[in-house]
Amino acid sequence: MNAFRLWPLMAAAAVVAVATSARAQTDPLPSWNDGAAKQAIVAFVQTTTDKASPKFVPPEERIATFDQDGTLWVSHPIYTQVVYCLDRVPAVVKAKPELAKVEPFKTVLSGNREAMAKLSMDDLLKIVAATLTGMSVDDFRAEVQQWIKTARDPRWKRPFTELTYLPMIELLRYLRASGYKTYIATGGGQDFVRVYSEEVYGIPPEQVVGTAGGTKYGYDKNGRPFLTKEPKLLLNDNNAGKPEGIHLMIGRRPRAAFGNSTGDRQMLEYTKAGDGQRLAMLVLHDDATREYAYGPAQGLPDTKVGTFPQSLYDEAKAKGWVVISMKSDWNRIFAFEK
Amino acid sequence: MNAFRLWPLMAAAAVVAVATSARAQTDPLPSWNDGAAKQAIVAFVQTTTDKASPKFVPPEERIATFDQDGTLWVSHPIYTQVVYCLDRVPAVVKAKPELAKVEPFKTVLSGNREAMAKLSMDDLLKIVAATLTGMSVDDFRAEVQQWIKTARDPRWKRPFTELTYLPMIELLRYLRASGYKTYIATGGGQDFVRVYSEEVYGIPPEQVVGTAGGTKYGYDKNGRPFLTKEPKLLLNDNNAGKPEGIHLMIGRRPRAAFGNSTGDRQMLEYTKAGDGQRLAMLVLHDDATREYAYGPAQGLPDTKVGTFPQSLYDEAKAKGWVVISMKSDWNRIFAFEK
Repeated sequence: MNAFRLWPLMAAAAVVAVATSARAQTDPLPSWNDGAAKQAIVAFVQTTTDKASPKFVPPEERIATFDQDGTLWVSHPIYTQVVYCLDRVPAVVKAKPELAKVEPFKTVLSGNREAMAKLSMDDLLKIVAATLTGMSVDDFRAEVQQWIKTARDPRWKRPFTELTYLPMIELLRYLRASGYKTYIATGGGQDFVRVYSEEVYGIPPEQVVGTAGGTKYGYDKNGRPFLTKEPKLLLNDNNAGKPEGIHLMIGRRPRAAFGNSTGDRQMLEYTKAGDGQRLAMLVLHDDATREYAYGPAQGLPDTKVGTFPQSLYDEAKAKGWVVISMKSDWNRIFAFEK
Repeated sequence: MNAFRLWPLMAAAAVVAVATSARAQTDPLPSWNDGAAKQAIVAFVQTTTDKASPKFVPPEERIATFDQDGTLWVSHPIYTQVVYCLDRVPAVVKAKPELAKVEPFKTVLSGNREAMAKLSMDDLLKIVAATLTGMSVDDFRAEVQQWIKTARDPRWKRPFTELTYLPMIELLRYLRASGYKTYIATGGGQDFVRVYSEEVYGIPPEQVVGTAGGTKYGYDKNGRPFLTKEPKLLLNDNNAGKPEGIHLMIGRRPRAAFGNSTGDRQMLEYTKAGDGQRLAMLVLHDDATREYAYGPAQGLPDTKVGTFPQSLYDEAKAKGWVVISMKSDWNRIFAFEK
């Protein structure tokens, strides 16, 4: 083989060497402080993607599931989707004026936040049914698309889609770059999260598992088929519903799972109970300054949303789940922060 | 730039040119005769993957859904999964001996084919419930894995997994090579098909949509969590259930859909009703020699399984769906044929 023939091979080898070296030097998780959480992630990825490792996981089995609210974005003091439902009430009442005099719509229209905070679960379910069902799936998608562009979080005055946690976005990208298929497994509405999941998280709609209602196939007056969102619950993707939903939608046990509350407990148990290397992590909201502190694990205040009781903390410690402290493990929380 | 520097670029260009030319000369669908069906497939793929085409479809929206029974593999005269259920009856009765004296189990155990053919839908549902539910999802998977390795089709004396249609396997590969994500949308059991879908069709479990029952999360005596298959129907993935199931599991309208019976009608309607370029195709079983001929479109005999009535044929013609004639469009049906 003469030098001319060898040249392209040598050039290719040099390019590969440079790329490998650049990769090794670039930290895939720059918003994470060095600590047990970051080390656990890196060790898990290295162990499961190194072909020489006894814990190697074939690419097709690399499934990672993420809770959304409180794990990937802010869910305190109120779930974003609940804000959406409340915001939609005026439009619903405009279409059905008789609802204006009926509870709980009357209270929501009044704008009285104290009265709204006292609405019962039954009231909320009525609002959910009126705002999330009864329309075509295409109309629903268009409504959420429009809302998500314009709605703002009251504390940061930014679109909710900017209130994602940068360290978790880095983690999603790192896992994907390592051959993991990333899924959302949310207690929120599957159709709701699917509207923005690709743009916001890089997760396509077909990789969103969430609380799901039935749809009904029918035809419009021109004979064109469409699906209507029905007030019939198929999957309550919370607690035991998470592993059940994961089985329904994915059919494989995750290798890694990430949550932040009791609603994620069973998903993490199920994930860790599989053979070989598994990773289970919980985000602890302990940063009252940069985000919120609630819990009540570690003496943090109790809240209705995203409950992280001491019993969950104890289970995590006993079972080798990794607790992520927002305060100590993350040097940056939001992408918009300097 | 001197010749040395130019060399690698020239070499790379030459490699690309050779590869392109080789690709153009290799027919991705060799088991398909040249005809309207093959031309429709190739035209669809070229139109939707050419960036310069006004009908270009972005890669993330390239979703193709395939019915299984009668579309990807033989389903005549009896669905393979029904054979599985009947074959499982002795094991079920061994575990619960009291069933031996109870119908329909008594008839199945008798092995009397004539009597079995007369079992009612209610009887079949009892057999389905007894053989497909009540065990853990892991045990079920292991049972199907074992069965699928050993069971044989009585006509060809081969594993059922060899009775896939080679032209459709080529089509699956061609679509995937063109950036399409291929899904199964089957009236059969989702958990059943998922066991072999990756090996047989190159379709991973998470891309199998099928008739699905609920599961129940619980713990074994060692506190290890597991999921039990419950006799509770979540999704009947037939007829209108196909677009509903596709929405639930994928959340996007397919660009291309393939079926063979009235059970696929709504999936094809839904697919074709989307904007831009769409492809809908139906396999017509009109080859009594190499496979089966039944229909009764085009005067073929009516059967209980995989009904293709004249009305479906007429709808296909009216709506621009392409009917695939096994007899004329396929020069080879099975991979094991020379």
